[in-house]
Amino acid sequence: MIIRLKQGVDPNSINPLLGALHAVFVPNGVANLVVTPSSVRDLPEEFEPFTDQYQVFDNDIQLASSLYKERREVELGPAVIGRDHQNTAVIIGPCSVESREQIRKSAELVKDLGLSILRAGSYKPRTSPYSFQGLAEEGLKLLEEVRSEFGIRIITEARDATHIDEVIAFSDIIQIGTKAMYDQGILRKCGKTTKPVLIKRGFGSTLQDFVQAAEFVLSGGNPNVILCERGIRTFETRTRFTLDLCGVAWLKEHVNLPVVLDPSHAIGMAYGVPDLARACMAMGVEGLLIEVHPDPANAKSDPAQQLNHQQFRELFVTLQELGNALGLRIF
Amino acid sequence: MIIRLKQGVDPNSINPLLGALHAVFVPNGVANLVVTPSSVRDLPEEFEPFTDQYQVFDNDIQLASSLYKERREVELGPAVIGRDHQNTAVIIGPCSVESREQIRKSAELVKDLGLSILRAGSYKPRTSPYSFQGLAEEGLKLLEEVRSEFGIRIITEARDATHIDEVIAFSDIIQIGTKAMYDQGILRKCGKTTKPVLIKRGFGSTLQDFVQAAEFVLSGGNPNVILCERGIRTFETRTRFTLDLCGVAWLKEHVNLPVVLDPSHAIGMAYGVPDLARACMAMGVEGLLIEVHPDPANAKSDPAQQLNHQQFRELFVTLQELGNALGLRIF
Amino acid sequence: MIIRLKQGVDPNSINPLLGALHAVFVPNGVANLVVTPSSVRDLPEEFEPFTDQYQVFDNDIQLASSLYKERREVELGPAVIGRDHQNTAVIIGPCSVESREQIRKSAELVKDLGLSILRAGSYKPRTSPYSFQGLAEEGLKLLEEVRSEFGIRIITEARDATHIDEVIAFSDIIQIGTKAMYDQGILRKCGKTTKPVLIKRGFGSTLQDFVQAAEFVLSGGNPNVILCERGIRTFETRTRFTLDLCGVAWLKEHVNLPVVLDPSHAIGMAYGVPDLARACMAMGVEGLLIEVHPDPANAKSDPAQQLNHQQFRELFVTLQELGNALGLRIF
Amino acid sequence: MIIRLKQGVDPNSINPLLGALHAVFVPNGVANLVVTPSSVRDLPEEFEPFTDQYQVFDNDIQLASSLYKERREVELGPAVIGRDHQNTAVIIGPCSVESREQIRKSAELVKDLGLSILRAGSYKPRTSPYSFQGLAEEGLKLLEEVRSEFGIRIITEARDATHIDEVIAFSDIIQIGTKAMYDQGILRKCGKTTKPVLIKRGFGSTLQDFVQAAEFVLSGGNPNVILCERGIRTFETRTRFTLDLCGVAWLKEHVNLPVVLDPSHAIGMAYGVPDLARACMAMGVEGLLIEVHPDPANAKSDPAQQLNHQQFRELFVTLQELGNALGLRIF
Repeated sequence: MIIRLKQGVDPNSINPLLGALHAVFVPNGVANLVVTPSSVRDLPEEFEPFTDQYQVFDNDIQLASSLYKERREVELGPAVIGRDHQNTAVIIGPCSVESREQIRKSAELVKDLGLSILRAGSYKPRTSPYSFQGLAEEGLKLLEEVRSEFGIRIITEARDATHIDEVIAFSDIIQIGTKAMYDQGILRKCGKTTKPVLIKRGFGSTLQDFVQAAEFVLSGGNPNVILCERGIRTFETRTRFTLDLCGVAWLKEHVNLPVVLDPSHAIGMAYGVPDLARACMAMGVEGLLIEVHPDPANAKSDPAQQLNHQQFRELFVTLQELGNALGLRIF
Repeated sequence: MIIRLKQGVDPNSINPLLGALHAVFVPNGVANLVVTPSSVRDLPEEFEPFTDQYQVFDNDIQLASSLYKERREVELGPAVIGRDHQNTAVIIGPCSVESREQIRKSAELVKDLGLSILRAGSYKPRTSPYSFQGLAEEGLKLLEEVRSEFGIRIITEARDATHIDEVIAFSDIIQIGTKAMYDQGILRKCGKTTKPVLIKRGFGSTLQDFVQAAEFVLSGGNPNVILCERGIRTFETRTRFTLDLCGVAWLKEHVNLPVVLDPSHAIGMAYGVPDLARACMAMGVEGLLIEVHPDPANAKSDPAQQLNHQQFRELFVTLQELGNALGLRIF
Repeated sequence: MIIRLKQGVDPNSINPLLGALHAVFVPNGVANLVVTPSSVRDLPEEFEPFTDQYQVFDNDIQLASSLYKERREVELGPAVIGRDHQNTAVIIGPCSVESREQIRKSAELVKDLGLSILRAGSYKPRTSPYSFQGLAEEGLKLLEEVRSEFGIRIITEARDATHIDEVIAFSDIIQIGTKAMYDQGILRKCGKTTKPVLIKRGFGSTLQDFVQAAEFVLSGGNPNVILCERGIRTFETRTRFTLDLCGVAWLKEHVNLPVVLDPSHAIGMAYGVPDLARACMAMGVEGLLIEVHPDPANAKSDPAQQLNHQQFRELFVTLQELGNALGLRIF
Repeated sequence: MIIRLKQGVDPNSINPLLGALHAVFVPNGVANLVVTPSSVRDLPEEFEPFTDQYQVFDNDIQLASSLYKERREVELGPAVIGRDHQNTAVIIGPCSVESREQIRKSAELVKDLGLSILRAGSYKPRTSPYSFQGLAEEGLKLLEEVRSEFGIRIITEARDATHIDEVIAFSDIIQIGTKAMYDQGILRKCGKTTKPVLIKRGFGSTLQDFVQAAEFVLSGGNPNVILCERGIRTFETRTRFTLDLCGVAWLKEHVNLPVVLDPSHAIGMAYGVPDLARACMAMGVEGLLIEVHPDPANAKSDPAQQLNHQQFRELFVTLQELGNALGLRIF
């Protein structure tokens, strides 16, 4: 249940009511909210003095539900996505920051194509301890350099809660990776900022769990949440994961958050990325996240799935044509 | 291993060599073939007199492999799909033939939009014995009527081997359904005709199994095989199935057969079909299979996933725009 | 809804009522039944004269439901399984009948250990056309020989509906394989016999679909149905399939049919079969199906997963110890 | 590759060699180790002075591989598990610590049955923000009380890296939950202690990923790692998860770490826990983890899957009988 508190209700008078209900106080501009478990179907008596408006939900997708409010919008620097803005963020860059030279080339490509946002990981959540783990703070510094020089925005990922503060302080858009989707140390910190947060679906996570991860951030007070589908694990292993566009259709119907798609991690092989990226574009989502590296064969992580610059330039032409056909502005 | 027999080699001299190898003789126009298990890496001595050309494969995807030959083409009545023809068959119609009136309305829609092929099931492979099982022979007769009257083609499905002969004799395109993909009674019969055969991927089938089902038909002597992805079963059950476009990208890279996509069965809910159909169109495949019913709410099977005529007409406009943007001709 | 017809009601007076409801007449000894779709919640008026007893169900698991009747029993030759009989059928034998010598050795092992039932396939539903497809009729003849000579029972499989009559006529227990679970040509024929039918769960089939396959046979009039869990397809591919014992616990709670487990096909590797077979025994099910071959390394199908005779003898000792601990009689 | 350094080699002389290789120095008693990525097949020249023994592996399961060393042993208080000790830890307790009274009852049951280890969560990694999140530090204090009073051991879970230090300091056995399996903030801290660490398999994690999580802890210098299978996510949703005993058989064959099984979380329903627990016991693993609550109906988390005390007492009798039959000592 989402309870809309009357203006001027003092949070201190509400706090004592929350614990017994497992309810959460959500700062929300002029009219603060309290969200209870969805199992609460009737307004608890003790809230009656503080509200004259509440809404019941079938499950714990509440703040993110399209029954609660129309599609949300999120400002991503030069453009706003969501609502009926018809803007599509095409976000590119390498899997990992590897060196100054590499990341400058990536930033140049972003700039040269008129795009706005560079992606690159600095804390890599690898599955093996015997592999490149990212440049950590050193990587953030390199990203800082290209951000200043090229005037672009950066999205980068926190691996776990031990360095989430640094990543929040540094990023323009904070990425929560597929392996960290359930990490409450990260989710709760992201609820305390107002920077945009892109949550990647856990590859073993249902849509319900996925959106509930967003509820952690939304209920923390940050309304700027973006969902990113990047492939789920299925019995089919000839491709690395299975991109779940049926799930995206479900999200567009039932959830009020903007959606971004990552075809690169889904298939895990560069050959399929252009076709998949076009399919994602035709789904009419708010953004694409595509791995592009100046020299994929020598990348320190995910070499097989990154497009080289020429391959991306060719793909980009067709994305623009599709955008034109569908009335979507790429930025 | 595919062994290309010299012209004029008598099949009767080859037959005695096959059994010990588990090899198959494949009639193939001027130059007949023998296909052995892929584990055979060196030309068996006894075949040396009969061939001067053979090709080794890594697994039992052989006749269907893009290493064997370039993308195949299949004639579907007024147009040819596959190869570099850039033709896209948009195939529509109800889940089941239910009545003369219903199927005439469907045929009129096909005709009115300038399309060519009507889909409709007459032998329904339902999972429950307590549900509508299709009109059987009666349904085929109704389909025959609209085929004659409207000059359109029909694709319909065999449920099992007990009526495969009737379905082969009747159909313009024979459909092998998702639950019958492993049915050798059906696959082997389809290898003996030259009518186009559309094989739907089993919802629990790997890409390897899927293409090997096509190998049964191809090795039977029928080169006109089309693969249809229609959603696989995953842990995500908020949608009926999960459409596997990563798998489609893999097929386009590794397999020489045309591909058709069925978004209706994948998501199982009408609300998502238009977005998914556009995504499928943007994948650049050879066809779409979409369930459209004159009155979905009263359909005798799959009421939730069928578009009504008006909904399809609106979708069709955008499919044409995408086709124009991508250089694809819809028929 | 299961409607129990009054004694003496003429089926001819019932038949005209069935079609409109998609209901099925089920011969059932003294009191015949009609089963309607579970969506029927109130007794249809037209049935009122013919019944004074009916039962409503939440879904189309009806005749197989533990809400309909207590656990069923099925006679398997020398012993009866199910109900509270505490009998466990340990069924062994090779994947395929390959030769007289091989199948005689298998039959000798069955006899020597005091077991009763031999398994062996003659029509193999292989996924590749370029592999051993079984000895077909020739295999049935070899099985007939050892049945007579050793006085044992035979369970063997139909691949598709083209030879289901031969398999029904020949077998003591008819096996419907995992790839044929949805084959109505087979299921409906099995409903017309009274021989025991063992249905293997499709590796992509939900428990709901699995039990509904049994409903096809039960509603055809054959009450002697056994369910066999043999592994489902999951994202884990280091083993061939994933044996679903949680699903077995669900079946034991909700379904009235005896359950048999096949650990060999589940893991697909001989090393794991003994531990898994012991786990299956400890689940307290009505039978085990284990692949045992006199010379696995040279088996013509599934060489990796078959135990040799010595391996099985060692396993058998521990199965007997577990049976003793749990009060189960092996036959 | 695992490189065994000669005795007395100074780590400071090794450290500079690691980075370029993505190799890890592993303290290991008398003979320290360096582990490189498994892609390194030949001993790097610069290591030649420091070693005369190294071993190559096919993949990044190295320290945990049964090719590296025989089954490891881990001391769990009163008994040692692993190797050929034939000891089985039966670990019980509620999902969450809820109150002093509740956890005292649980501890009494442990003590009364002669068991040694109590499980209970204090930081609950819930999927919804609108549900009971555990008592946090307060819960640890209550656990501390019963540990002292009853002389039992405690296993409890860290939710994320923000409180891992507290959990490590407090626990006798540290549990890494299914949603935290990839959390390197947790894994790396657990590598720095020598307390036993039980890693639960991520429900979307392959066996390869699962064992690689253990490699993070092992390569950090902590050899006391236990693997816990607790069910994976599959298309079957009539049960909460699917317990993967085929995977357990694979672990027993290929991995040198003790294995514990959690049937409660796998099925998610109390009715199936006894049968599954017996199956797990018969697999011959090193431990069981079973949720038992003094009053399941009023539990604040997971009410459906917890056994009450009487139900567990009945199960325990049969576990002991199975233990006797199989030569396993329960503690």
